[in-house]
Amino acid sequence: MDQRISFVTLAVRDVQASREFYVDGLGWKESLHVPDEVLMIQVGAHVVLSLWDRDQFQVEVGPIMSGEGVAPITLAHNVATPGDVDEVLAQARNIGAHPVVPAQERSWGGYTGYFADPDGYRWEVAWNPGPLGEAVLP
Amino acid sequence: MDQRISFVTLAVRDVQASREFYVDGLGWKESLHVPDEVLMIQVGAHVVLSLWDRDQFQVEVGPIMSGEGVAPITLAHNVATPGDVDEVLAQARNIGAHPVVPAQERSWGGYTGYFADPDGYRWEVAWNPGPLGEAVLP
Repeated sequence: MDQRISFVTLAVRDVQASREFYVDGLGWKESLHVPDEVLMIQVGAHVVLSLWDRDQFQVEVGPIMSGEGVAPITLAHNVATPGDVDEVLAQARNIGAHPVVPAQERSWGGYTGYFADPDGYRWEVAWNPGPLGEAVLP
Repeated sequence: MDQRISFVTLAVRDVQASREFYVDGLGWKESLHVPDEVLMIQVGAHVVLSLWDRDQFQVEVGPIMSGEGVAPITLAHNVATPGDVDEVLAQARNIGAHPVVPAQERSWGGYTGYFADPDGYRWEVAWNPGPLGEAVLP
């Protein structure tokens, strides 16, 4: 099994709301949209983000953990400068992302903040001055 | 904000157990390992998988949802043939992945199964004969 992620799938309560956020809001281009089922967006050379209806997700994968709190995962969007971090977070706020956690300097040397998508999934917007930070930039 | 995922971060209970699974078990090469903190593995041209200590995750991101059930996300590893799906699932079983859900034909034309990593995160091993399935192959 070679080290590759092909799809990142998030269970969502309302595919249309996801579409309004990612496609209409962020301006991302969809690769596939089946209303009330799934929305797929290419987010890397060989990587697709899939927003999949939560009920259908549970039928195939199993019951989802319940309760208050955030999901145990985050997705990061890295940018080339600290200023870019602030710009992307401002854009997220402008299209209604909530909450938006302003960026701050991190102990490891980076500068990152967070915004939530309509289902509360946290996106970290990050400037990472290390070699891995450079490796993830296009 | 251009459509890119740079990091996929999973909160894990035991970074060492994650390392035994992904590095020792699957044979993936780590880019960064800080014991008891974080393990990072490159999983795409510009994409890194980060296994981050759950306690440290919660300090920065917030309390994680509790309760029984699976996390509301899956990661997919796509392969070129249905036979490859069975092979990868067998490899996962051999290194102790549990549960392993055997592959089956899906209504949309693909052939996929699942295995869980030490924290229960579901990996879907997939053959997808459609254009998006081809787009995610290296």
